[in-house]
Amino acid sequence: MRELGESDLDDLAVGAAILGTGGGGNPYVGRLLAREMIRAHGPVAVVDPGEVPDDALAAMSAMMGAPTVMVEKIPSGSELLRAFELLQETLGRGITHVVPAEIGGLNSMTPLVVAARTGLPLVDADGMGRAFPEVQMVTPTIDGVAATPMALADDKGNAALIETVDNLWTERLARALTVEMGATALLAAFPMSGAQLKSSLIAGTLTLAQELGELVRTARGRHESPVGSVVRRLAGVELFRGKVADVQRRTVAGFARGEARIDGTGGSAGATLALRFQNEHLYAERDGEVVCTAPDLIIVLDAETGEPITTEDLRYGFRVVVIGAPCDARWRTPAGLELVGPRYFGYDVDYVPVEERAARAAA
Amino acid sequence: MRELGESDLDDLAVGAAILGTGGGGNPYVGRLLAREMIRAHGPVAVVDPGEVPDDALAAMSAMMGAPTVMVEKIPSGSELLRAFELLQETLGRGITHVVPAEIGGLNSMTPLVVAARTGLPLVDADGMGRAFPEVQMVTPTIDGVAATPMALADDKGNAALIETVDNLWTERLARALTVEMGATALLAAFPMSGAQLKSSLIAGTLTLAQELGELVRTARGRHESPVGSVVRRLAGVELFRGKVADVQRRTVAGFARGEARIDGTGGSAGATLALRFQNEHLYAERDGEVVCTAPDLIIVLDAETGEPITTEDLRYGFRVVVIGAPCDARWRTPAGLELVGPRYFGYDVDYVPVEERAARAAA
Repeated sequence: MRELGESDLDDLAVGAAILGTGGGGNPYVGRLLAREMIRAHGPVAVVDPGEVPDDALAAMSAMMGAPTVMVEKIPSGSELLRAFELLQETLGRGITHVVPAEIGGLNSMTPLVVAARTGLPLVDADGMGRAFPEVQMVTPTIDGVAATPMALADDKGNAALIETVDNLWTERLARALTVEMGATALLAAFPMSGAQLKSSLIAGTLTLAQELGELVRTARGRHESPVGSVVRRLAGVELFRGKVADVQRRTVAGFARGEARIDGTGGSAGATLALRFQNEHLYAERDGEVVCTAPDLIIVLDAETGEPITTEDLRYGFRVVVIGAPCDARWRTPAGLELVGPRYFGYDVDYVPVEERAARAAA
Repeated sequence: MRELGESDLDDLAVGAAILGTGGGGNPYVGRLLAREMIRAHGPVAVVDPGEVPDDALAAMSAMMGAPTVMVEKIPSGSELLRAFELLQETLGRGITHVVPAEIGGLNSMTPLVVAARTGLPLVDADGMGRAFPEVQMVTPTIDGVAATPMALADDKGNAALIETVDNLWTERLARALTVEMGATALLAAFPMSGAQLKSSLIAGTLTLAQELGELVRTARGRHESPVGSVVRRLAGVELFRGKVADVQRRTVAGFARGEARIDGTGGSAGATLALRFQNEHLYAERDGEVVCTAPDLIIVLDAETGEPITTEDLRYGFRVVVIGAPCDARWRTPAGLELVGPRYFGYDVDYVPVEERAARAAA
């Protein structure tokens, strides 16, 4: 067990936004909220999955909706707590551990808020190892862990509890409620035992996020670019460098969808990168050739500072580096690819691991 | 207390469809389901509101959604029971009485199904005295009775429980879930005490529906038209006679919306009636002059048999009589008209009681 305090939040927010591949909500909004909670309630205990007893009762806490809207509607801790408490009442047992659903800008912070408010330990793990746009897209789904009962709460005082036949139906009903609740909702879901948690979650991702944030911070302190060390830490590849030439985005059915075009500079001069996103960056094509797709991570960093840029912050004129990094091995299985492979998102290409694509291009 | 058995269902279904003003779902579907349940579980005890103890716990049972779709998806008793049991679990107390939300084709039968399956008494009353398209449109809303907790269940095995800040929000969230669940859902809601029930519901409407059904049946037995006796029983007015010349309908956001044009015959020859509906008939205009609007009842009967015709059954060539009848007095108050007056439904006219409009036209 270790403690996560106010001074850790900056690194965590930056690293989580890197792993968030452009989505998961705004890291600054989440950090503000988490700081407020830690100031009020003290630091949060973080435990490794291996430290969680098999008979523990853990649940995920997250914000659902279009990140574009999340920026405008800062959630209050009490909405998150309402969803969490509603789930707990339904289960009829005290929840013992809080689990992040995803590592992304805002959603690495929402479970921290709940942990701070409730005094429960936060598990150093998540269900994606990155951020994804839909509820069922977590490794526990691969193992047959049900998303429901799921509790949702909005900023007006409305709440809902759903119980579905599978996790795709959870996504459908939760999304319909979220859209109606004003495009964002706070949720508590995926109740699971300690034993399930150990076998189904991706371990160590909070620590990884903090390390990535630290790499960016220390490189900046030395007036160096952190891009190289981020690439190395993630065993990734630098895909492209350039200047954002165009961004199109729209909020559709509770998602921020869009596309960005980046004109190459430096080693990428003369080439163009097309980036497509649905909350997160999901597909990158260089001059018509696919260079990286979900579930691998497509990470957009500011070329100078190494700070991650979310899909909603991406603007014309930004100078960026685009990195591809391997996802967790479970996403590369047939069951994983069925949930989060390129075809699920509507891209008619086979999944090829980003490092293989890079090796082919280099050959 | 009286018993409602299989032999009562035909009259009840016909009369409820008359009061249902074209909506509330298909009466034949509901009757089939209710008959099956009564055959399996025996007759249902019907009690007057005055017989319900003040500390009783009653709840409404209904089907939500576009009636056009309800016809295609016959609900099973177990879906209704699932919603009812989920509500009961949430309340943490046994529900003692079942209450109809509305008197309409299908929705006069759904509470009967629950009463038959659970053995609970059914209260001879409802929240509308007719059918209306939205959840909040019940007299208990006028008195501040909350629609939530509300439980919903679908035919696939999904369920939801919602808790909202007001009954308009209940409508919004329940509608979003219903649309996602395939345009229909079974629900249990408006938990209320016996005391609330007595002051907030419209009493005697099941009995009224049975009486109307009996009028139609006995007139038919005497080869007479039942139209005159239906008009008298409801203290209504005959608005129009004619032949359906055109029907336009579409299913929008879980509602069946549309418009019918009726060319006059007999005393109405040369005139045209325009009927507008959203699940129920809500607005009637004769040659451009308003003759009846919600919340008063606009009832369309087959000119020969006197059988009520639902909005989804209305077809080109049907010969019909259109009746206007006064709604319950509570709907004519400012609070009632705010909920179900013509302006709520988008018709830019003041509400004038149907009998006043008729007197003016006759003068």
